[in-house]
Amino acid sequence: MLIPHGRRRVVIDRVFPEIDCGSFPVKRVEGDDVTVEADAFADGHDAVRIVLRYRRRNGRWQETEMEALGNDRYRAVFRVAKPGRYEYSVCGWIDHFRTWQDGLAKKHAAGVETDVDLLIGADLVEAAASRASAAPAAAAQAKAAGSGTRAGGRAGAGADAERLKELSAALRNAKTLHAERVRVATSSELTSLMDAYPDRSLQTDYPRTLQVKVDRERAAFSAWYEVFPRSTSPEPGEHGAFADLANRLDYIAELGFDIVYLPPIHPIGHTKRKGRNNALEAGPHDPGSPWAIGSEEGGHTAIHPELGSLDDFKALVEAANGYGMEIALDLAFQCSPDHPWVREHPEWFVLRPDGSVQFAENPPKKYEDIYPINFETEDWEALWQELKGVFEHWIDAGVRVFRVDNPHTKAYGFWEWLIDDLTTRYPDLIFLAEAFTRPRRMYGLAKLGFNQSYTYFTWRNDPTGLRDYLTELTTTEVAEYFRPNFWPNTPDILHEDLQLGGRPAFLARYALAATLSSNVGIYGPAFEKVEHTPREEGSEEYLHSEKYEIRYWELHESGDLTSFIAAVNRARRENPALHRNRNLRFHAVDNPNLLCYSKISDDGKNVIFVVVNMDYHAPQAGWVEFSPAAVGLSHTAPFTVRDLLTDTAYRWDGYWNFVRLDPAGVPVHLFRLER
Amino acid sequence: MLIPHGRRRVVIDRVFPEIDCGSFPVKRVEGDDVTVEADAFADGHDAVRIVLRYRRRNGRWQETEMEALGNDRYRAVFRVAKPGRYEYSVCGWIDHFRTWQDGLAKKHAAGVETDVDLLIGADLVEAAASRASAAPAAAAQAKAAGSGTRAGGRAGAGADAERLKELSAALRNAKTLHAERVRVATSSELTSLMDAYPDRSLQTDYPRTLQVKVDRERAAFSAWYEVFPRSTSPEPGEHGAFADLANRLDYIAELGFDIVYLPPIHPIGHTKRKGRNNALEAGPHDPGSPWAIGSEEGGHTAIHPELGSLDDFKALVEAANGYGMEIALDLAFQCSPDHPWVREHPEWFVLRPDGSVQFAENPPKKYEDIYPINFETEDWEALWQELKGVFEHWIDAGVRVFRVDNPHTKAYGFWEWLIDDLTTRYPDLIFLAEAFTRPRRMYGLAKLGFNQSYTYFTWRNDPTGLRDYLTELTTTEVAEYFRPNFWPNTPDILHEDLQLGGRPAFLARYALAATLSSNVGIYGPAFEKVEHTPREEGSEEYLHSEKYEIRYWELHESGDLTSFIAAVNRARRENPALHRNRNLRFHAVDNPNLLCYSKISDDGKNVIFVVVNMDYHAPQAGWVEFSPAAVGLSHTAPFTVRDLLTDTAYRWDGYWNFVRLDPAGVPVHLFRLER
Repeated sequence: MLIPHGRRRVVIDRVFPEIDCGSFPVKRVEGDDVTVEADAFADGHDAVRIVLRYRRRNGRWQETEMEALGNDRYRAVFRVAKPGRYEYSVCGWIDHFRTWQDGLAKKHAAGVETDVDLLIGADLVEAAASRASAAPAAAAQAKAAGSGTRAGGRAGAGADAERLKELSAALRNAKTLHAERVRVATSSELTSLMDAYPDRSLQTDYPRTLQVKVDRERAAFSAWYEVFPRSTSPEPGEHGAFADLANRLDYIAELGFDIVYLPPIHPIGHTKRKGRNNALEAGPHDPGSPWAIGSEEGGHTAIHPELGSLDDFKALVEAANGYGMEIALDLAFQCSPDHPWVREHPEWFVLRPDGSVQFAENPPKKYEDIYPINFETEDWEALWQELKGVFEHWIDAGVRVFRVDNPHTKAYGFWEWLIDDLTTRYPDLIFLAEAFTRPRRMYGLAKLGFNQSYTYFTWRNDPTGLRDYLTELTTTEVAEYFRPNFWPNTPDILHEDLQLGGRPAFLARYALAATLSSNVGIYGPAFEKVEHTPREEGSEEYLHSEKYEIRYWELHESGDLTSFIAAVNRARRENPALHRNRNLRFHAVDNPNLLCYSKISDDGKNVIFVVVNMDYHAPQAGWVEFSPAAVGLSHTAPFTVRDLLTDTAYRWDGYWNFVRLDPAGVPVHLFRLER
Repeated sequence: MLIPHGRRRVVIDRVFPEIDCGSFPVKRVEGDDVTVEADAFADGHDAVRIVLRYRRRNGRWQETEMEALGNDRYRAVFRVAKPGRYEYSVCGWIDHFRTWQDGLAKKHAAGVETDVDLLIGADLVEAAASRASAAPAAAAQAKAAGSGTRAGGRAGAGADAERLKELSAALRNAKTLHAERVRVATSSELTSLMDAYPDRSLQTDYPRTLQVKVDRERAAFSAWYEVFPRSTSPEPGEHGAFADLANRLDYIAELGFDIVYLPPIHPIGHTKRKGRNNALEAGPHDPGSPWAIGSEEGGHTAIHPELGSLDDFKALVEAANGYGMEIALDLAFQCSPDHPWVREHPEWFVLRPDGSVQFAENPPKKYEDIYPINFETEDWEALWQELKGVFEHWIDAGVRVFRVDNPHTKAYGFWEWLIDDLTTRYPDLIFLAEAFTRPRRMYGLAKLGFNQSYTYFTWRNDPTGLRDYLTELTTTEVAEYFRPNFWPNTPDILHEDLQLGGRPAFLARYALAATLSSNVGIYGPAFEKVEHTPREEGSEEYLHSEKYEIRYWELHESGDLTSFIAAVNRARRENPALHRNRNLRFHAVDNPNLLCYSKISDDGKNVIFVVVNMDYHAPQAGWVEFSPAAVGLSHTAPFTVRDLLTDTAYRWDGYWNFVRLDPAGVPVHLFRLER
């Protein structure tokens, strides 16, 4: 029952945003506004006051009066200044003073007010005087946190009480002209005093307190660069180390990325190790997959010796920070048969009737190099603590960003507990969920706390598919908790578009990812070097995948995509419109090969308009619907758009303008509206 | 947190229907099905079993397995047999047996299963044998209430335990051929036994138990006839009585109505009594408004003496029941200044500083003949009990249907408590909310328990407006709790359409009300006698309104609408498609003056197709989109539709067919598809 009982007559309902009845928080970043709406009403025709309550978790509640939108809907906004948790709810009460004041004004206008009407108001004002004098501290506090309708500067609740008594007496004074008493009754002074000391004894509180998870800015706006440190040696054939990667940081920084993400850096198992190109048997010199974690040299808190020491790793973190970048680690909770946990905690795995440990399976396929962890173990509490300890180990080493491998194959309750516990202590943590699975599972991980999520972007390969998908991600309730991170490639996924579309596909897909989504990532140097050969036809696996072998990459070759990526990333940084997703808006175009969309910053000053030719094999041209008016700006004269990739200005006029994009050049316009 | 903690790995979310996080029940009538859907999944790839739990309130829980719809969505249906409250929720668990069985079958097909694989299954079967033998009674009960996959007829859990042990041994028997052991593993016998004794120790329960309010059929399908008993005397100018109304019941029954609804029957106040046509001062012989309730002769439990005695009233109830009809009373919780409560319980009213009782106001208008009840009174508990006693008094007199006057001006918490309390004891009660107010307030009353509601139908006067409104009422969540009752007129509302549209407007509006909405009502005899003169131009009040004077109506005059109304009501009764609203579907037509829609019964056998000309002044014709295929039936040959109002058959062919409706005749086609 949402209905208040007894004498509480206000009903509050349908608060938005509210995810699954308040089971999960909505997400924001520091400095964002949270707009809250609610239905609220009372029986009859009495005036109601509806208030948004909010606070930083465990802080003092603040209040702001909600604006009536009509039709019993109310709205207010509060700002979340710092990372952490905030809470909000709604309450309301009947305002007998406003009801009376409004009625008196109408009666006075109609010439039918009576002495008794004024006495009713005098009683209400006297009661407010009692409230002001009875609890001056609390009332003064409530006043300070109130709706802001008072100018302030009064001498406090005691003085207010005195003044209210005077005004009550003035209303009662039958010797004064009616008109003068009505003037007092409707004066802004009396109104603001009465607003400050409302009778909230019959207040209705919305039954749930709702949550906001506030992250730092980079949770919403980031550019990731995935790189295998073992492939960063300057010498072909050598095993790269953290120090080699440190030397490559200037290159990554020049590309414009801010998160350098490393696949697992732990010792790699020997038993059933996979060979090059995922061969079932490894050759003697095959390095194995970094995701087959654990050997006699250690598990998830250890470092593969050839990469360096913990100090080397910390030095890498420091060096990245020096470039304004940070290091992200991949945590994959699975074990090679050689992982210490297998010996020390066999109860954390499924044991088979023959005493062996159950390996990973997707029947009839077997993955004997990997032992999954059994989250149904009766020793689950110790397991959860140990896994949390892994995160804490790397947090201590300076890591604040984690890409979590296949979180959807570990218990959801574990992640919810883990992220909540760690984030409470380290509000700057960012968790990226690598879950390529069905939508409700992906959304479920985002709801329980993951700050960013991989998506289906890779498999949305035409304008209609992208438009539909982005509409779901940016305009539905999903936008409250799911932050997409768009990856044109990963070490696991070389999409056919890239295999067959060549350089124009790489350019278009990166531009799409980086402008449709405020979070973007690539796996390099494969991406910027236009690596596009699959292991075999029909496969999304790379030939000579770095997952199974060390690669040497020649950088700074002509024809690579470095300058294009750097230009896109520069445009992203310099244009606040590209730092968010809920401002995405698609525009009409008369050519189905073109995708057109805009983003506009909250203050309306920064307007980005993007056109991408998704036909990677032929030039496409068309009329696109774009003008300042089309994005809600009051501007009708001819205007200029500047392509930030080519630094070319175009003079446009009217709603419909012409574009032509040739895959032989740059198949993307990234326009900024000139002001 | 919706996430199950510890070892519980199943996640259940987004159960539908669920109104405001389970704060309010959904509504059904006896014999209806309740279709429940939920999201459910576990981490990883294990099989899950998801079960709908349901029961009659305080009864034994039953379970039915939910069907996987794909994309982690599940669905099941249960039937609500009797009026009262039902409850439902969802639970689920991981089924390690099904996971194993599915994997084994795939491995066997690929020729890679091993002895260990079979031993894993043998352990699972042995554990089920233990469950069967450990708790035979509980397990047998669970089996009986289970998914129905077992044929039944087994000797009970003890025998099942023995058989499971045998099957486990067969799986272990290394002397048998692998293929034979796999056959046992995948046999339907083993599958159904394992389904009957699942391991539910790590089951996840959805955190909320949801409610269904089940009403009797008439809550969903009813035809109301409002009549002033004081205007039913056979002698012009005489005050009618219950006995006179009893004599008119055959007339009302012939019209085809089943609820005869009386405005308040209580003593009428004298103080500030309103005169004819709502004059501020009553003449000496003016009878006053029945809504000015209470005099020295009694209040809400008394009867206006000229109408008869309580026994006369009970006789009227009996007589109506004899026609298959029932009497509905209007309960209006407001008091004339002469009401006994004003003397006995002045604390239930707002007292003004001069000691007088606050009368009703809509500033600057005053309604001094009416004292509203103060639901903020500190004596609210005694007040609530007294008001409930009024309902109980009339329930004791045989009334089961109440039209509640202006419920939105009384505390919502009161109604929720009242209806829940009374309906628990009298599940056959029907409450109709007469709240003409903003949508969220009307929906709020429906959510908290009113079985039927007045609507905006009267003010939806063109095909587009009706289509939009009905789409909201029948296709959104609103349909779960809000049952519209469409009234073309009431004593308060004579719409301009009826004032100016004449007979065709009356015909069209009744046909629309009676076929768009399964609940319909008219205020008669004003309606069937085409009474259409307003008090003054621009007013929706009747001239010589029966609210303020006694009227004499000459019945059975030629030109009245009785035969038309009777024909529509007969069609309603005989066609199950017209007994519900969620089956409403609009059809295209190439003339904007025509409204076309169909309803089809749950079993698909009864198909009604309606076309109404909403231009009351000129014939309109057009092509309407209707064929059996258009309502989802597989039937493409020429077909026959029969107009149930004129008993004329039409041979139609194809999707588009021609109609012409002339307001000079009957501006409505009420077709039934002939089978």
